[in-house]
Amino acid sequence: MGEHALIQRIRARLPPPPSFVIVGIGDDAAVIEPERNALEVVTTDSQVEGVHFDFTFVSPADVGHKALAVNLSDIAAMGATPRVALLSLILPPTLPVDHVDALIDGMAALAVRSKVAVVGGNIARSPGPVVVDLTVTGSVHRRRILTRTGARAGDDLYVTGALGGAALGLRTLRSNHADSSAAAQRYRRPEPRLRFGVLLGRNRAARACIDLSDGLADGIRQIGEASGTGAIIDEAALPIEPGATPEDAFRGGEDYELLFAVSPKLRRRLDAVKRLTKDLAVTRIGRLTAEPAFLSERGGKAEILPEGFVHFGP
Amino acid sequence: MGEHALIQRIRARLPPPPSFVIVGIGDDAAVIEPERNALEVVTTDSQVEGVHFDFTFVSPADVGHKALAVNLSDIAAMGATPRVALLSLILPPTLPVDHVDALIDGMAALAVRSKVAVVGGNIARSPGPVVVDLTVTGSVHRRRILTRTGARAGDDLYVTGALGGAALGLRTLRSNHADSSAAAQRYRRPEPRLRFGVLLGRNRAARACIDLSDGLADGIRQIGEASGTGAIIDEAALPIEPGATPEDAFRGGEDYELLFAVSPKLRRRLDAVKRLTKDLAVTRIGRLTAEPAFLSERGGKAEILPEGFVHFGP
Repeated sequence: MGEHALIQRIRARLPPPPSFVIVGIGDDAAVIEPERNALEVVTTDSQVEGVHFDFTFVSPADVGHKALAVNLSDIAAMGATPRVALLSLILPPTLPVDHVDALIDGMAALAVRSKVAVVGGNIARSPGPVVVDLTVTGSVHRRRILTRTGARAGDDLYVTGALGGAALGLRTLRSNHADSSAAAQRYRRPEPRLRFGVLLGRNRAARACIDLSDGLADGIRQIGEASGTGAIIDEAALPIEPGATPEDAFRGGEDYELLFAVSPKLRRRLDAVKRLTKDLAVTRIGRLTAEPAFLSERGGKAEILPEGFVHFGP
Repeated sequence: MGEHALIQRIRARLPPPPSFVIVGIGDDAAVIEPERNALEVVTTDSQVEGVHFDFTFVSPADVGHKALAVNLSDIAAMGATPRVALLSLILPPTLPVDHVDALIDGMAALAVRSKVAVVGGNIARSPGPVVVDLTVTGSVHRRRILTRTGARAGDDLYVTGALGGAALGLRTLRSNHADSSAAAQRYRRPEPRLRFGVLLGRNRAARACIDLSDGLADGIRQIGEASGTGAIIDEAALPIEPGATPEDAFRGGEDYELLFAVSPKLRRRLDAVKRLTKDLAVTRIGRLTAEPAFLSERGGKAEILPEGFVHFGP
C-alpha cells in the first residue's frame, strides 16, 4: 500500500474535524483557527517499539492510546486544554496494515473522549522499529499556565491517583503476557489527568506542576531544581498502587499522574478543585524545603531520594 | 549521557527564543503567544536513516538542515510564515554525541535564517535507525492561504527553480560520496521557498500550490485530483537541472520547489511576485485541463504522466 492510500485509510477511521480546523488531513499542512485570547501549548513525545512497548504484551490499540495519552499528560501538566494532534508514523514494511488500523482506532477513541482533533501527520517507512511520534497542541489562558518553576520552600507537594502501578503492570506483563490486572491496564492505557490539570490552573491552586512520566523521584527533582528548592517526602503517605513498592513509585515511571506544589495558604483553592474531581484521589506526600536536598523520610530516618529512571542512555 | 543532560546540551546550541515564546525548552510543553488575527499552520515530517539519508554521503549537519527544510517547504506551500519548531529525536545509543551536536548546528543555522524558534522536543533511544522528526508551525492570514484545491481547468501551471537536481545529486553521491556538485548540494541542502510562498499568498496570485517533495508528476496529480482537473505538461518547457533528465524531474522527488496554478487573468499578480523574487526562476510548464487525464507532451505526442515515487511501501 502506498503512502497516499494509507493516509486515506487512516483519515477514514478518524471522526470529522471540528469547525476550528480550516484545512485538515490531505494538504501540505493543516490550518487551524487559534482560540481567542489564549496562549498556545505545544508538546511532542514518541513511543518506540522495543523501548517503550513490546507487541508481545501490548496491542496496537494500546500503543495508539498511549502515544496520545503521554502527550495529553504533558498538556494537562501545563493546565491547558488539548486541541489538535499531528501523527508521525515510522513503519517497517513488515507491519500488517490491520495493526495500523487498530493503532489508529485506539488513538481515535482517546482523541474523541479528550476532544482532540487529529489534523495531519506523516508516514515514513523504516528498516527499524515502529515509532509513533505525536505532537499535540493545547490552549491556556495566560494567568492559568502551570509550569515547573514558581514553587517555593514551604509549599506542600501533592500527587493525583496512585503511583507505581505502571511499573508493577510492566513487571507482571513480562511474565504473563495476557495479564489484565488493574496494574497491567495502568501500564497499557494510562489516563491523562486533563480535567484535573485544567481545574488546577483555572483555580490558580498550584504554584508548579509536572506529569510523572519518569517516576516520582525525577518529578520532585525537576520541580525542585526548576524552582530552586529541595524537598522532603513522607514515604508512609505515598499512595502506592496495591502490590507495588515505594521503589516502583519513585523510579518506575509511566504513571502519568500529576505532581504539584500548593502554598499552604492556598489550600482552599485545592479543596475547590478536589470537590469537582471527586473520583480522583489527591494525596499530600511531602513539602518543598529551603535546603537544596531531595529526601525521603521513613520511620523518622531521612534518605536521599533515588534518581528517576533514565530513558536515554548511555 | 542521560536525556536531561542531552536536552541541556542541545538547548545551549540554540539561539535564545524570541519574545513570543512564553515557556521554551525544559518544561512539560512549550507555551507560545499566537500571532494576532492569523490562522495557524502545522505540519510534521521525518527523516529516517537508511530511507531518507545515509551517513556515508550526508553529514549530520546536512540531516539537521534537511529535516527542518522539508517542513519549512510545507509551510511555504501554504503561503505561511514559519514560527516555531518541535524536534523529536529517535537515537540509537551508538550515535556519537558530536553527531547530535552537528545535527543541531545544521538545523539551528537554517532556523535562524528562517526565523523559526526551536521551542521544545523530545529524545527517545531506539535499537533502530536515527529518526529526526520535526513539527513546524506557521501563521497565515485567512485570505492568503494556499491549498491544493481551488485550481480550475485553464489555469497555467508554474514551478519555481530547477527540477531533477536532487535525484541527480543522490545518484552522483551514491558513486562519489564526496561529490560537492550543485546537484549534490540540492540533495543535501534543499532550500525551502519561504519568501516566494508568502508573496504568492499575499498577492493572491495562485489558486493552488504544493511543494515538490515526491516529484513533479505526483505534485501535478495531487493538485489536479484535489481541484477536480486534469493537466497537460509541455516537457520541452521543464526547467531541468543541468545533467538531470525529465524522468528525474517527474519521478525523482525531493526538489522542494513550489508547483502552483495561476489563472491567466491573474498573471499580472504573478509578475508582481516575480519582480520581488528576481533570483528565483519561475517557469510555466503547462496547464490544467477539464479532461481528467494527466498528460505530458513531447514533440507533439502526449503520454500519460508517470506516477511519482512511492515513499512508503509495500
